[in-house]
Amino acid sequence: MAHIFRVRVYYSDTDAGGIVYHARYLDFAEHARTELLRSISEDKEDLSLLKLAFVVKSLSVDYNQSAFLDDLLEIHTTVEQAKRFSLTFLQRVLRNGEEIATLRVKVGSINVETAKIEPIAGWILEAAERL
Amino acid sequence: MAHIFRVRVYYSDTDAGGIVYHARYLDFAEHARTELLRSISEDKEDLSLLKLAFVVKSLSVDYNQSAFLDDLLEIHTTVEQAKRFSLTFLQRVLRNGEEIATLRVKVGSINVETAKIEPIAGWILEAAERL
Amino acid sequence: MAHIFRVRVYYSDTDAGGIVYHARYLDFAEHARTELLRSISEDKEDLSLLKLAFVVKSLSVDYNQSAFLDDLLEIHTTVEQAKRFSLTFLQRVLRNGEEIATLRVKVGSINVETAKIEPIAGWILEAAERL
Amino acid sequence: MAHIFRVRVYYSDTDAGGIVYHARYLDFAEHARTELLRSISEDKEDLSLLKLAFVVKSLSVDYNQSAFLDDLLEIHTTVEQAKRFSLTFLQRVLRNGEEIATLRVKVGSINVETAKIEPIAGWILEAAERL
Repeated sequence: MAHIFRVRVYYSDTDAGGIVYHARYLDFAEHARTELLRSISEDKEDLSLLKLAFVVKSLSVDYNQSAFLDDLLEIHTTVEQAKRFSLTFLQRVLRNGEEIATLRVKVGSINVETAKIEPIAGWILEAAERL
Repeated sequence: MAHIFRVRVYYSDTDAGGIVYHARYLDFAEHARTELLRSISEDKEDLSLLKLAFVVKSLSVDYNQSAFLDDLLEIHTTVEQAKRFSLTFLQRVLRNGEEIATLRVKVGSINVETAKIEPIAGWILEAAERL
Repeated sequence: MAHIFRVRVYYSDTDAGGIVYHARYLDFAEHARTELLRSISEDKEDLSLLKLAFVVKSLSVDYNQSAFLDDLLEIHTTVEQAKRFSLTFLQRVLRNGEEIATLRVKVGSINVETAKIEPIAGWILEAAERL
Repeated sequence: MAHIFRVRVYYSDTDAGGIVYHARYLDFAEHARTELLRSISEDKEDLSLLKLAFVVKSLSVDYNQSAFLDDLLEIHTTVEQAKRFSLTFLQRVLRNGEEIATLRVKVGSINVETAKIEPIAGWILEAAERL
């Protein structure tokens, strides 16, 4: 079951082509992943207490349709692959059920104090596998 | 021979992780592609007179190293594939010769007035093939 | 009575100083003004049907406290002055009741098709005066 | 004599109104102030070595004209007031000599390690007064 995050498109998200600027989908997707992690960690330890952060290792985007000012978008996020040091998210951006863009984002886990890679906590991997 | 575009990293490009925010590389790459097109069209017709615009159809990014505040980056751009309706750019982000990130960006050509796809002008394809 | 709009702070809003980048408050404030206008126009004519847009003429910001990653901010917006061709908003950014920043933003009304100034619709001025 | 910094307008700087998004002028102005500080510190100690950073305390902007995609803008920056703990910059954004926007930005000096306010180094104040 995908995690769903809603985004309203404002002027700051658009460009002179009259559409959502293509890089802004990465921001939207980052916000959705953060809320997904917040939702699974509510009754667990806090991510910031764990000193864990996720850095993007690679990503790909397919742009199918343009999105426009005032559009209400939904980001559907699932975890495609959960490994000891990385998570790969599949994130679909929808408008009224129509696919606007699809992102695949692979993030690695690091310790925010040492900036070194760190294994992902077990409860995150378990929760990720249920998504 | 790659087209080279230089970018200085400012506060507005960074995030609380102390590094360049991952979506900003797409902005840098867009700026580099624009300057590449400007450089090949100088003695030709102006892109805006041609009513031509390029929209991003798909892209992928590999992040190899972090970039930091005040870094001076170079974007090396070549055209990997030039077709009648699309161009695929390979864009390498370097710092002192070290590879920070690599992007592949496929853009389609549209008429800015009709927003319909339009064949890419011959002189652009010719110039693209020399890159 | 102020219009209230909530904003969560994500990585894309922060800078390498570890705080919300100072220009991002203008984005937050724009989003809040848009939602204020949406809330007063729901049972009225749609702004986009009226071909009305608002452009920022001037603004000032006082930064009192820093905001940080994951903060949940509230933007409290009131209309300080409603005139035939301009609205001046007072926008306070709060975190748990503490004042983070205060903005004063004067916008002018233009017709989106002609880009010429246009008087603000009466029902907007009336609603604005009640805020 | 003003410090001059040139900015090219790209898609990422514009919005669906077809103009430069109003908050982007704050980014441009930040970049200009950074280059001004870089220019006066070249043969002096490096700002990052001094562990000095500047945070924006307040600002105001007057928007006179719109700027558009591909515009080449100049930011003319002078120091209006140099005090022990703050600098106030006057920054004019010009296009072919025509005034697009004017900013007044007051920044305070902090120690990046302690995040506490710190007196501005004498050589910065001296250089600032010559601007």
